Amino acid sequence: METTTRPDAAGIAAHVEAIPELAARLGGVRAQWDVREIGDGNVNYVFSVHGPDGALCVKQAPPFVRVAGSSWPLTPERARYEHRAMREHHRLAPDHVPAALHYDPDRHLQVVEHLDGHVVLRHALVDGRLPADAGRHLGAYLALTLFHTSDLALPAARKRPLVAEFEGNVEMCSIMEDMIFTEVYHPFHRNQWTRPQLDADVERLRADTDLLVAVARLKDLYLTSRQALLHGDLHTGSVMVSERATHVIDQEFACFGPMGFDVGSLFAHLLIAYFARDVPGVEAETPFQTRLLETVEAVWDEFAARFTDLWRSSPTGDSYPAAVLPPAVLDRERTVYLDRVFRDSTGFCGAEVIRRVIGFARPVDFTGIGDADRRATCERRALRLARELLVHDQRTAADVVAAARRARLPHGAAG
Amino acid sequence: METTTRPDAAGIAAHVEAIPELAARLGGVRAQWDVREIGDGNVNYVFSVHGPDGALCVKQAPPFVRVAGSSWPLTPERARYEHRAMREHHRLAPDHVPAALHYDPDRHLQVVEHLDGHVVLRHALVDGRLPADAGRHLGAYLALTLFHTSDLALPAARKRPLVAEFEGNVEMCSIMEDMIFTEVYHPFHRNQWTRPQLDADVERLRADTDLLVAVARLKDLYLTSRQALLHGDLHTGSVMVSERATHVIDQEFACFGPMGFDVGSLFAHLLIAYFARDVPGVEAETPFQTRLLETVEAVWDEFAARFTDLWRSSPTGDSYPAAVLPPAVLDRERTVYLDRVFRDSTGFCGAEVIRRVIGFARPVDFTGIGDADRRATCERRALRLARELLVHDQRTAADVVAAARRARLPHGAAG
Repeated sequence: METTTRPDAAGIAAHVEAIPELAARLGGVRAQWDVREIGDGNVNYVFSVHGPDGALCVKQAPPFVRVAGSSWPLTPERARYEHRAMREHHRLAPDHVPAALHYDPDRHLQVVEHLDGHVVLRHALVDGRLPADAGRHLGAYLALTLFHTSDLALPAARKRPLVAEFEGNVEMCSIMEDMIFTEVYHPFHRNQWTRPQLDADVERLRADTDLLVAVARLKDLYLTSRQALLHGDLHTGSVMVSERATHVIDQEFACFGPMGFDVGSLFAHLLIAYFARDVPGVEAETPFQTRLLETVEAVWDEFAARFTDLWRSSPTGDSYPAAVLPPAVLDRERTVYLDRVFRDSTGFCGAEVIRRVIGFARPVDFTGIGDADRRATCERRALRLARELLVHDQRTAADVVAAARRARLPHGAAG
Repeated sequence: METTTRPDAAGIAAHVEAIPELAARLGGVRAQWDVREIGDGNVNYVFSVHGPDGALCVKQAPPFVRVAGSSWPLTPERARYEHRAMREHHRLAPDHVPAALHYDPDRHLQVVEHLDGHVVLRHALVDGRLPADAGRHLGAYLALTLFHTSDLALPAARKRPLVAEFEGNVEMCSIMEDMIFTEVYHPFHRNQWTRPQLDADVERLRADTDLLVAVARLKDLYLTSRQALLHGDLHTGSVMVSERATHVIDQEFACFGPMGFDVGSLFAHLLIAYFARDVPGVEAETPFQTRLLETVEAVWDEFAARFTDLWRSSPTGDSYPAAVLPPAVLDRERTVYLDRVFRDSTGFCGAEVIRRVIGFARPVDFTGIGDADRRATCERRALRLARELLVHDQRTAADVVAAARRARLPHGAAG
């Protein structure tokens, strides 16, 4: 049964009531439950359900994009992959991924742990707030989920069936393939940017063959690599934060792909926040902007350190067999491996920044800037960094931070 | 139903008789059919069936390795993947892959087109025969099968389900992962080599950290890349030749992986034949050896030319979108793409040569050399080339040929 009608609070409560484990989590009886629609995403219906003893989050996927209605169909099967990836990632990083409690394949409906006192990281950033540990938490999340679903941890006999399962998420992957790597580089009806201010920038970018080649190679990598189970859409709107905790949600684009895709996407949105937080008339970087750049470094440093530790302590996969490689050699190779992940990450970061400036899904960090000239200045700086990341290899997170700072200079070094 | 008993001629004939399309191909009646066991492989039972009007080849996979019996279990499901890959590759390269006519999932039994007048390429090479067009045919086969199953030709919506299907061939892939990239690099009970002549060579190779790292990176590539649907075991024993035709069989190791794995494996076995054909007391390369090296070049040249043509004429996949990349840029990028496939190929070639000298499955090219000292000399030269290919990038097929010649010199440049 496909649900094409809008779910209501009563229907959500009835569904929860029918599942004893869920009802028990809420406590009391249905009449005592407070059901509210909380979804601010564009795609799904999301409700919170509070009872005397606890709370749940219920998410239902209609067979279309919520904000567009039936004019933009979208497979409701996305809920299956989201649930599956969330379960897998929660098992691997329980502190940073909510527990997936229930999935109803007929209604494309999931129930997950409710995150009390959390807000969407993107909203926090727009408000100038950034919990102190968020970067470190996200680095740990990336290390735990990516390492443990890679051939470094999973024997092929366990990884191949998991790869097979996620190959089914074709429609959602196809959205990424198109939106990130193709649509923005030629005329396409959903593209939008700050016009006319960025018209010349967009034209220049589409004629920039070095950049086009770099993006094409990244698309090929996304299409051919099955390195680890990705979140698949790790922007700051997929991250929920409180002062002390960080949780990643919205795994509906999950698939096996190159690790750098997730790392780079997170970099991109922290850097978008960095460029969006310029203060009119003030050229100096604000302390909050400095913290955003420090967070980029914190994400990478924590990721690299945790990933290396995990590889040392749990080399349970089939790749880089410890039976054959001497420990010192393996240690050097870990650095080489992470250097490659870093290079992929900065490339994917560049591609993500560009599609968020001139594509369909522009983030509120930028669109919330009312003055178009001011917005265009921020966005142009972001594009400048993106080109630098795509066309020139960066070796370290400090190099990326330095490139971001150069891109803000009135006569930026790049592009 | 699992067949653990040895199939006999009467059973094979009865099975064929029960399938009208197959019986019709043979013509006449069952009593007129001539059924013979022809399998010289170590793994399966293979029969030819000749009737008045035509012939068939019947292959049955027991749940173990034929030569080892029940002491070495092996999934009979391999027949399913062989049939599936053969069907796919026959559709793409009908001149070079026999037609897959029938598959019985209960008996793990396949029926394929009978290749009249063909012999196994390895046997022909050992006898000093090499059909003039074999190299060109194999280059074309590789281009057709690899291009058309890659993201350059297949839209992701069609490729991902095919990838998912072949992820199931876990057990056969795992044999390759172990045999090629791991087992030979440490003590393992199935390893064997020409002893004591090569003892020191084996010891040196296992302590050669540059080589170990190169092999580990190739294993990671085999585990993580889903570039194209591979044959998966493309040695000269999987190739049937007549004077005018070339056909590739035995797809039971088929999986999605890096294109260079197939290309490199074929290179390896042509080069093994090259080193094995040394004439005692004669240091000069024989004309047949020269032809073997020319065949390596012919395989690559035909592969690269056909692959490029296919990419120009049928860019129907999602990778390297022509809507975005100007033709001149795309043309340059085709060269870069093929350079990368070539680099992967020479690496996999090196790994394949090594495991065929010091691993479990040594080829008759070498094992047929009765004099152990002479054999060891040939094998040592092969190992020397293998190291060169693994540790130093080769740019062209001519470079590989030159390296092979250097490896035959009394004081070879490498290793």
